[in-house]
Amino acid sequence: MAAIGFGSRVRVSPFHESTIAAGASSFTIYNHMYMPIGFGDPAAEYERLTQAVALWDVAAERQVEIVGPDALKLANLVSARDLTGMAIGRARYAPMCDHQGRLINDPVALRVDENRYWLSLADSDILLWVKAVGAERGFDAQVSEPDASPLAIQGPKALDLARDLFGADRVDSLGFFHHHATDLNGIPLVICRSGWSKQGGVELFLTDGAQGNQLWDLVMQAGEQYGIGPGTPNQQERIESGLLSFGSDHRPNTDPVEAGLAGFTSLDGDHDFIGRAALEQRMERPVRNNIVNVRLHGDAVPCEYPWPATIAGESIGELRNAVWSTKLNDWIGLAQLASPNDAPGTEFQVTLPDGSTRKATVHHQPFGAVQS
Amino acid sequence: MAAIGFGSRVRVSPFHESTIAAGASSFTIYNHMYMPIGFGDPAAEYERLTQAVALWDVAAERQVEIVGPDALKLANLVSARDLTGMAIGRARYAPMCDHQGRLINDPVALRVDENRYWLSLADSDILLWVKAVGAERGFDAQVSEPDASPLAIQGPKALDLARDLFGADRVDSLGFFHHHATDLNGIPLVICRSGWSKQGGVELFLTDGAQGNQLWDLVMQAGEQYGIGPGTPNQQERIESGLLSFGSDHRPNTDPVEAGLAGFTSLDGDHDFIGRAALEQRMERPVRNNIVNVRLHGDAVPCEYPWPATIAGESIGELRNAVWSTKLNDWIGLAQLASPNDAPGTEFQVTLPDGSTRKATVHHQPFGAVQS
Repeated sequence: MAAIGFGSRVRVSPFHESTIAAGASSFTIYNHMYMPIGFGDPAAEYERLTQAVALWDVAAERQVEIVGPDALKLANLVSARDLTGMAIGRARYAPMCDHQGRLINDPVALRVDENRYWLSLADSDILLWVKAVGAERGFDAQVSEPDASPLAIQGPKALDLARDLFGADRVDSLGFFHHHATDLNGIPLVICRSGWSKQGGVELFLTDGAQGNQLWDLVMQAGEQYGIGPGTPNQQERIESGLLSFGSDHRPNTDPVEAGLAGFTSLDGDHDFIGRAALEQRMERPVRNNIVNVRLHGDAVPCEYPWPATIAGESIGELRNAVWSTKLNDWIGLAQLASPNDAPGTEFQVTLPDGSTRKATVHHQPFGAVQS
Repeated sequence: MAAIGFGSRVRVSPFHESTIAAGASSFTIYNHMYMPIGFGDPAAEYERLTQAVALWDVAAERQVEIVGPDALKLANLVSARDLTGMAIGRARYAPMCDHQGRLINDPVALRVDENRYWLSLADSDILLWVKAVGAERGFDAQVSEPDASPLAIQGPKALDLARDLFGADRVDSLGFFHHHATDLNGIPLVICRSGWSKQGGVELFLTDGAQGNQLWDLVMQAGEQYGIGPGTPNQQERIESGLLSFGSDHRPNTDPVEAGLAGFTSLDGDHDFIGRAALEQRMERPVRNNIVNVRLHGDAVPCEYPWPATIAGESIGELRNAVWSTKLNDWIGLAQLASPNDAPGTEFQVTLPDGSTRKATVHHQPFGAVQS
């Protein structure tokens, strides 16, 4: 086990002290911020998330705020999904491309006010990207990182807990990806019905970074009766649920369609966005490198780096992630494979870091609908 | 001690296996890559660096490659330092600004060929920034990340070792910040007389990522007679030597002049770069937040996050980094302080995470020239 070093280059989350006190034992760095990724008991963390309710410090999902008369124009230009007509208080999952049509982030775009949008980011410096595009185009819009740090309440009991905290009316009227500004005992936040699991719940975007530990404590106390405990974005649950992990499930040279996000782009309309023409050209290529679900055969081994994938010794791509699924009682994962070797039923081989090999099979998707 | 989690979102360096075998015990994540920051014996690592020679895996200092007829135009536009007239085989330390004049990285810019430049980066996604600017301006230049991973050989014996490896003529003719492509036993690399210490040495930019561990082993074997051992960018040495750590020594809203880099900009000429006008306006502000050397009084405590700095209870900024200097036999650090409280001799107070306080004094710079 290697330690993570703490230093001033990397920011601490507003919830950091609370997560340490709650037993956070393992961290990553995400958007230049420490993010807990384990509390020492993966089985209990998975069970809380899928049976009760879990509290996640996901402050590292930083926001890019775009404000001003041209805010929609700029947000829409960098988003492969058309944001036109999105009402205040609504959000859309909005993949982003560079000018070559490659995926550079997959944020949730929130319209928080008339001319104010947030992009709730995966791990890349989209603040620099949006600043550069906005300034170079001469748009009348300010681009900055606001004081807004998500705290996720996820699990089948998450909405019960949210009702206790905010009132049943406010929560029951909150549709999926709906949000509004409110407060909890005077702590300002934006509540959004969202989160990176399929267990349901809300994200509280704390808008005063000085009150993170107070917010954490309030939620923990109210959640006690529901069996709440600390957790983190969960690799097993999100693979079972078919959620993309940007930067993890694919190589840098990947487009949103290869990543399985075609349904979250507006390629079927006339939406004009950065990278559209290049993306359409990429889609015509004879070989495409698609992310697919796979089943692995043999004893489960943690996948810490991509493993080469081959058929009869020829490279077809790589396995990017693998977990033992207690739900499916199977060893499952995500691979990025060159077509036509991405077709369900295709059998291939992966080579582990120790040189040993395992067999694997491309699965129908999603996992949840498939008998293993 | 918290663990670092390993997963496919973060890349491993070409030298990763070698660093693990050599006892790397602590890591950070830098430019989306794992970077070792400790081998378990800080005193020995400092001594090797300052008395003998140390080998550092700094592959996380990723390169942005700019190629094409407009390569110089683009590189120069994003660089606060004029790169015009820089010959092939030369390099310049080149801070970069956003359109608001704020420091967004401080790379070394290398001209590796007629129309080919590398920016050897600190920790931010400048690849996105340069791509956005180049594409939005319609420049005829490709921007990408090449397969180029620096391995630094640093210390007073580093050049002796480099002479043994590459021949005395090749090394002795290599001036500071000079570089050229070569190979070592067939392993392709660019050798540059550079490195993030004041102990002297070279950086080998490995240009075939598959041969990292072979290169590491070759250097280690040849260095045995000089007392070589593994090391990392060294917090104590770099603070004693007055080297900036981008992102660590300052808040995000800081410009290159506040960061002490005025001498590495071309503000005195007519060099036109992104952020110049905004930077000149910032320089007229009545209050500037400058990075200064400070001496701390009392028992040394590691500084893992910024500590608030105050005078008579009023905030004047923050202490960003602190180390016990065995060389100066003093507890020293770097603070970012609002003028005029950044003047040498100014006494102030810092508040540690446990609520206790320490006295501190702004120092003349650099440390090396000052008696403590």
